[in-house]
Amino acid sequence: MTFISAIKTSDVRFPTSIDLDGSDAVNTNPDHSAAYLTLLTDDPEWPVGHAFVFTGGRGNDLMCRAIETVAELLPAKPVEWMLERLGEVSQNLIHDSQLRWLGPEKGVTHMAAGAVINALWDIRARRAGLPLWQLLAEMTPRELVSVIDFSHIRDALTESQALEILEAGQHGKAERIAELKATGYPAYTTGPGWLGYSDDKMQRLAAQAVADGFSMVKLKVGGELIDDRHRLELARKTIGENVALAIDANQRWEADGAAAWINELAEFDIHWVEEPTSPDDVLGHARIRQEIAPIPVATGEAAHNRIMVKQLLQAEAIDYLQIDATRVAGTSENLANLLLAARFGVPVCPHAGGIGLCELVQHFSFFDYAVVSQTRENRMIEFVDHLHEHMATPVRLNQGRYEAPSQPGTGAEIKPDSVTKWTYPVGAGWQRQQGSLRATNEN
Amino acid sequence: MTFISAIKTSDVRFPTSIDLDGSDAVNTNPDHSAAYLTLLTDDPEWPVGHAFVFTGGRGNDLMCRAIETVAELLPAKPVEWMLERLGEVSQNLIHDSQLRWLGPEKGVTHMAAGAVINALWDIRARRAGLPLWQLLAEMTPRELVSVIDFSHIRDALTESQALEILEAGQHGKAERIAELKATGYPAYTTGPGWLGYSDDKMQRLAAQAVADGFSMVKLKVGGELIDDRHRLELARKTIGENVALAIDANQRWEADGAAAWINELAEFDIHWVEEPTSPDDVLGHARIRQEIAPIPVATGEAAHNRIMVKQLLQAEAIDYLQIDATRVAGTSENLANLLLAARFGVPVCPHAGGIGLCELVQHFSFFDYAVVSQTRENRMIEFVDHLHEHMATPVRLNQGRYEAPSQPGTGAEIKPDSVTKWTYPVGAGWQRQQGSLRATNEN
Repeated sequence: MTFISAIKTSDVRFPTSIDLDGSDAVNTNPDHSAAYLTLLTDDPEWPVGHAFVFTGGRGNDLMCRAIETVAELLPAKPVEWMLERLGEVSQNLIHDSQLRWLGPEKGVTHMAAGAVINALWDIRARRAGLPLWQLLAEMTPRELVSVIDFSHIRDALTESQALEILEAGQHGKAERIAELKATGYPAYTTGPGWLGYSDDKMQRLAAQAVADGFSMVKLKVGGELIDDRHRLELARKTIGENVALAIDANQRWEADGAAAWINELAEFDIHWVEEPTSPDDVLGHARIRQEIAPIPVATGEAAHNRIMVKQLLQAEAIDYLQIDATRVAGTSENLANLLLAARFGVPVCPHAGGIGLCELVQHFSFFDYAVVSQTRENRMIEFVDHLHEHMATPVRLNQGRYEAPSQPGTGAEIKPDSVTKWTYPVGAGWQRQQGSLRATNEN
Repeated sequence: MTFISAIKTSDVRFPTSIDLDGSDAVNTNPDHSAAYLTLLTDDPEWPVGHAFVFTGGRGNDLMCRAIETVAELLPAKPVEWMLERLGEVSQNLIHDSQLRWLGPEKGVTHMAAGAVINALWDIRARRAGLPLWQLLAEMTPRELVSVIDFSHIRDALTESQALEILEAGQHGKAERIAELKATGYPAYTTGPGWLGYSDDKMQRLAAQAVADGFSMVKLKVGGELIDDRHRLELARKTIGENVALAIDANQRWEADGAAAWINELAEFDIHWVEEPTSPDDVLGHARIRQEIAPIPVATGEAAHNRIMVKQLLQAEAIDYLQIDATRVAGTSENLANLLLAARFGVPVCPHAGGIGLCELVQHFSFFDYAVVSQTRENRMIEFVDHLHEHMATPVRLNQGRYEAPSQPGTGAEIKPDSVTKWTYPVGAGWQRQQGSLRATNEN
């Protein structure tokens, strides 16, 4: 019998706002940050569970506190007991009768629940000696269904419909797993496209992306239409006709008027327009999609739970679902999201970037191919070449494709030295940066 | 020139879970709590600004911390400057480029922004010597429009459409204000209907509600169908045919299946069914409304921002909008909600109860009649006779109607002695309660 012996959070922030890495029309000066959780057990033979919530900097301390608040709800039971009942344990964190008022199932408390749940998944995968995607692929359909919270999505996906999808996915699974290990999963890159980059830097990075074998480049838009046209023209010239080009407005537009702006960019052959409006606006997305057809709509990184994802699909509001690894209530809720997308035949192209999001979210695409959608067609995982040096098991890219993760766990572990150096505000990294950061943040 | 000199939060909790006051199908044992904020200035002649976020107990400390996090974003400007620019100041709190990732515009951080914004409104109303509703009623249409954030709702309500509604509301305003002061605003009561109450207690309180002149009684449902039928039958017998009877499921049902349950209750002449499913499920509410017609649907207390309210209206998902005083980003966002409802011709019947929610939310109904909808027909404010003794300016009810608030401010002030006694966990009230509370909370 093994028990949780310590719940430790760290406020880890990277001063990315200095170089405007990760800048877009709405997130103008993010410090990519992780509200980082380690779950320790009283058995030194057991692995430590790692997880984090990605944030934009300010509020990362609040996120840590929220993780601690949710973690206090873990039952005083052996970890073995919890790992066998991940569904029940997750749902008790999410639906706590008092804490739920602060959501329900959204914002700080929901993301915090995701971190606690993911730390348990990390322990489970490490105990099994498997990367998360493979652990999931080897679970039986019944086990998978048992960890998913179907509440408020049964009008779109019932337990038995989920079972059906997962049982169908058992056929040829071994071959698909072998294929994934041999050929990986396609990636696209947002690295060149941040709004704060100069034309030169954008073009240089876009050319590099093509040379690196990426099949798509994505540009942030939504500042000024004239600038968007200018940058898209340059980007299209740089990457040629055979590489896809997507745009990302980061929620910038009104449902009224978005189409007029987007249609002005149609000539650049847009693969998708991402987050054209508020992530809460299901009906707005549906309207925009109709008005810009055949340009596809992608969204989901800020869809705060499976109920929002369900509605985006029901309303035919999206052509691509972009799940995020730390927005929802962990692995368990993202399984629901993958199954919902499969049921509606919508491809999942996960959101990544930030710190560690690539490392986490890749597992869902690998699992999706192995057992759920059974196809990689028209699917890609976002890639940003950014802060991977801090991750204990960084993603490996090869010819514009993610290699299959092979290390046990969820991929959430941050190198201990990086945690120490970039703990805010006392870490050595921050003390050295302080003068210039203050200046940047006070813009 | 006056400056903010202190931002103080208090974690105030009342042990309501002991008597199951406020219990329903989902919130089974709430400790009604206030994450309480006072904004002090450096001028002793100036009023203190009070505000709070209502919560269910656990997490109230996290909510206090969130309020402090958001309050740190207030500009280092004179309070006079901020009060003249409440729209701009509010929007900078809500759309902060780093903090927004934790929402955006939802959950803990959004409610925290609401508290900070409301504390400024409290100072403004107290400086003007007016209760909030009257301050709002005396503002010009242009001033009102200037405090509202129209982002992501312009497809349903533009600035000029809002102006039009508010300008129309200037005609006869003085008469309506006089009428409100003379005759108040209709109320209904949820006091008898908590799920944890015995049949006897429910019937006794329901009979009392009729005697007190309330025009509607609301019962919590959604535990077991057989119990719901039993309680509704008893309640209908007790209150007679001339008092309305509403039910509240507190998000309990699936969109699939809700109608079957509700239609089993139709014979009791249901005035509305409240929160039949997840507050995020706009499409689910719309479907349920179609399937239970002509029984009306009410929701909104957990609609986390104006964008959700907009969609509930656009999708024709609701017959009544139940705004909450501390769920959204303060007075400013509730003005948007009132105007949206007016534009769609949907009556606003605010959610109240908890601690202090009656005191806060009444102002919006009084203002709505004075300037926006210009009618009290088919409109009521919820009333729960509960914890008012802790409020500095408690609501006054008369013959089942709210009397017009007459004291300056928003109504958010909690008596200093109550704050001290019920500060968690160190207040004297909690020390006395501790043994039995632990037992209750560990159920």
